[in-house]
Amino acid sequence: MTDEPTRRRGGGRAGRQAERSAAGAVSHPYLTRSIPPYEVLGDDGLSTIEQNADTILEEVGVEIVDFPEAVEIYESAGAKVDGTRVRFPKGMCRELAASAPSRFTQHARNPDRSVEIGDPHMVLAPAYGSPFVRDLEQGRRYATIDDFRNFAKLTYLAPQLHHAGGTLCEPVDLPVNKRHFDMVYSHVKYSDKPFMGSVTAPERAQDTVDMARIVFGDDFLAENTVLMSLCNANSPLSWDRAMLGSAKVYAENNQATILTPFILAGAMAPVTVAGTAAQTLAEALAGIAFTQIVRPGAPVVLGSFASSMSMQSGAPTFGTPEPALVLWVMAALARRLGVPFRSGGNLTASKVPDAQAAYESAATFFPTMTAGVNFVLHTAGWLEGGLVMGYEKFVLDADMAGMATALVGGVDLSENGQAMESLLTTGPGQHYLGTAHTLANFETAFWRPQTPDSNSYEQWESEGSKEAVARAHERWRQMLSDYQPPPLDDEIDTRLRSWIEQRKDSFPDSDVS
Amino acid sequence: MTDEPTRRRGGGRAGRQAERSAAGAVSHPYLTRSIPPYEVLGDDGLSTIEQNADTILEEVGVEIVDFPEAVEIYESAGAKVDGTRVRFPKGMCRELAASAPSRFTQHARNPDRSVEIGDPHMVLAPAYGSPFVRDLEQGRRYATIDDFRNFAKLTYLAPQLHHAGGTLCEPVDLPVNKRHFDMVYSHVKYSDKPFMGSVTAPERAQDTVDMARIVFGDDFLAENTVLMSLCNANSPLSWDRAMLGSAKVYAENNQATILTPFILAGAMAPVTVAGTAAQTLAEALAGIAFTQIVRPGAPVVLGSFASSMSMQSGAPTFGTPEPALVLWVMAALARRLGVPFRSGGNLTASKVPDAQAAYESAATFFPTMTAGVNFVLHTAGWLEGGLVMGYEKFVLDADMAGMATALVGGVDLSENGQAMESLLTTGPGQHYLGTAHTLANFETAFWRPQTPDSNSYEQWESEGSKEAVARAHERWRQMLSDYQPPPLDDEIDTRLRSWIEQRKDSFPDSDVS
Repeated sequence: MTDEPTRRRGGGRAGRQAERSAAGAVSHPYLTRSIPPYEVLGDDGLSTIEQNADTILEEVGVEIVDFPEAVEIYESAGAKVDGTRVRFPKGMCRELAASAPSRFTQHARNPDRSVEIGDPHMVLAPAYGSPFVRDLEQGRRYATIDDFRNFAKLTYLAPQLHHAGGTLCEPVDLPVNKRHFDMVYSHVKYSDKPFMGSVTAPERAQDTVDMARIVFGDDFLAENTVLMSLCNANSPLSWDRAMLGSAKVYAENNQATILTPFILAGAMAPVTVAGTAAQTLAEALAGIAFTQIVRPGAPVVLGSFASSMSMQSGAPTFGTPEPALVLWVMAALARRLGVPFRSGGNLTASKVPDAQAAYESAATFFPTMTAGVNFVLHTAGWLEGGLVMGYEKFVLDADMAGMATALVGGVDLSENGQAMESLLTTGPGQHYLGTAHTLANFETAFWRPQTPDSNSYEQWESEGSKEAVARAHERWRQMLSDYQPPPLDDEIDTRLRSWIEQRKDSFPDSDVS
Repeated sequence: MTDEPTRRRGGGRAGRQAERSAAGAVSHPYLTRSIPPYEVLGDDGLSTIEQNADTILEEVGVEIVDFPEAVEIYESAGAKVDGTRVRFPKGMCRELAASAPSRFTQHARNPDRSVEIGDPHMVLAPAYGSPFVRDLEQGRRYATIDDFRNFAKLTYLAPQLHHAGGTLCEPVDLPVNKRHFDMVYSHVKYSDKPFMGSVTAPERAQDTVDMARIVFGDDFLAENTVLMSLCNANSPLSWDRAMLGSAKVYAENNQATILTPFILAGAMAPVTVAGTAAQTLAEALAGIAFTQIVRPGAPVVLGSFASSMSMQSGAPTFGTPEPALVLWVMAALARRLGVPFRSGGNLTASKVPDAQAAYESAATFFPTMTAGVNFVLHTAGWLEGGLVMGYEKFVLDADMAGMATALVGGVDLSENGQAMESLLTTGPGQHYLGTAHTLANFETAFWRPQTPDSNSYEQWESEGSKEAVARAHERWRQMLSDYQPPPLDDEIDTRLRSWIEQRKDSFPDSDVS
């Protein structure tokens, strides 16, 4: 970790004050967990899964698709290569992973919003990667860069989200090979929270690093991590050039990557929890090891995204108990490995933000909180198995995710927390509404979400009998209407835009990949 | 515990077979937890709360309202009495509680449906006590005995619910002082799952015991527990004649009671988790001690129902993090005390089964599952802070509660669970859909809920774009239409009905209390 810089990057002191008045002071740039992580398996069970992962890496290994350079890199560190197949002597990946930091700072351009990635902290980020968006008025439609900007603004305004995320939705109105410029620029322009970079090609990862240099300065970037990007395996047991190539660019620049097996169990892994966990660990270890060969000590996160499937239809299912068990197990395995862990979110297969969406989302988010996940992608907005970013779903998810602060904060056993004086002086049958203790704790006593309606039936009815989705609709419209951008240094903005223009003009548009 | 009787009570072998074909075989009469309970506090923290509860019991004590006999009972065991106030020397209640069983069997009239109350088991029951009902077509209205019968039938048909519950809704079309006859009769007639008795007056508790004698036989009831009933404290620190008087009747007959402080923190207890837990423990200990003085060894359950409140409006709020912490703490305290624990459910303040309802419900149900709650009231149907029993909410809750089986079942580390042969023979980039391991585990691989729609957007749209509530509406209508009652011995049914008629005729109707 690097000491917190005192200079606001891209803003300045006046800018910071203006920002505070616009979006409120930064009270929780990230969460600190006081409750212990929930352990569903003991040491023996976890050790069995680790051994199985090692056996998989040794006997099957991983396939490296279209990226001979990565094969050479693995071989240089002692892996056994057979064409595009790379196998690892037992323990090799784990030994390489030992050089990765157990915690690191991802700096935001507003230093007040820099986040700590690693125990005992939790950082929440919005959903990632949907080609569609949905809202109550316009329904489901392809996402555009305008939608992307909207979600960048909403994420900036949501105090429950500590991180700007990455591909908030796919701006399909822009050329595939140039979208990343506009996405990264939007994160810089409309927010001052830390963000993620492009991983769809190594060149785009390099573009992201180059843009970050303009925003943060060459010197700062050389010594600090300002980007954290998502590299998914092609499960089972395969890594490709886009992801490993991007991971290489980021690692070389000391920028963080999240190496994530994305597994639909039953299709891309066995149908069992222990089998899925062993495969996830094997795939992630191969990816983490790669970053540490490229640059020992490069910040890296072990990711796990597991879902179950309907054995009748083959459809992915979310909010089910088996992936919850995988999540708890993987969190424990990451702790044993000594690297930060990414998983969880508010996941659902529902097409709309209805009761199904909420039940399923909470059934992932509770394991997320109790597992002590360090970086939570997909905290807000996810619908339809990730195909859709929902405006109302975003507002509802973010609001409910606010409970994490109090939940992971745990039980206050201070004198004030024990409240014994109040208990011993308030008699049987009396109420606590006006006691000195209640009045002293009035402001902070309970978590206060914004979207639930807890009023009486009569009051709710007199206010129009609105369901949650209708209240959420009003809320995001109001948020966008009230939005004020965080200050951004004009010179930096100008340089960034002119650099992007130059790069865009230097090669033709393409929608191929 | 008593050995499982081989005779079906009120049915017979032919009846059991008929029942199986009607409602399906009883595969899980209750759940068995393989995952460890989640502990948010260590021994020191729990011990602090125990000491605080002891201090409250010694210095403040409990107020006994309108029930001098209970005061005498407490005094006979060594409590210090001052009028209606009863104070307990430190450790007294805990010592008395030591005679309570850590686990007991509550027998159902169908022995296949008898449940184990206590670790490592979990028993799920529907919501309790609502004066209103709601469904999608008719909206919100006062509950009637027809609604009660409908929920008795739906509970019988729901494989996720192991217990018939008690006051499924208040049949407000019946006289207050005679409702219990029809409620208990409905549980016997329309279901064969274990059920709860009346607690609104000691005489009604006695009526419940007398009716159970007719159903189960005098001899069987003398030696076994067939009733488990809910006695709530009047928090803070007060117990009344209705509840303690009912508890006395049940304990004398070796029938179980659930002693539950029902606490809206901030109004009926301090606003803090540790304060609410200490008060809950004190109140429950006083109640448990009472049952053990009446009859040492009488089965008893430590209950906890804690909710937070809106500090702006005073409205009760549900699905918030503070009550989740209370739940985890109280579960641990019950384990240390060595008695079964009741808490949790699917609680919400929402007026309708929308996203708010589901988020809030799941935010109680996940702590419920991970705490290892032994008896879960309010698993299905609860809306509007308990004022409303919802038909669609019932179906959605029960369906989602089905995940508990797989979740508390934990991680299978058998050879089949590890799936290593499959992992080592399925190559990188291959799929697992057709592997021998997947085919062998096809039927049981993943939890299969009925109400979520995980199909593609196009398929969902072609099927009418139905939200969860619409699917749930169709489902409960279909369930009631398909309902077949479990067999009930004609002679028992006749005796029961004639006994009820006689009792009803023996005193005038009253709606006073």
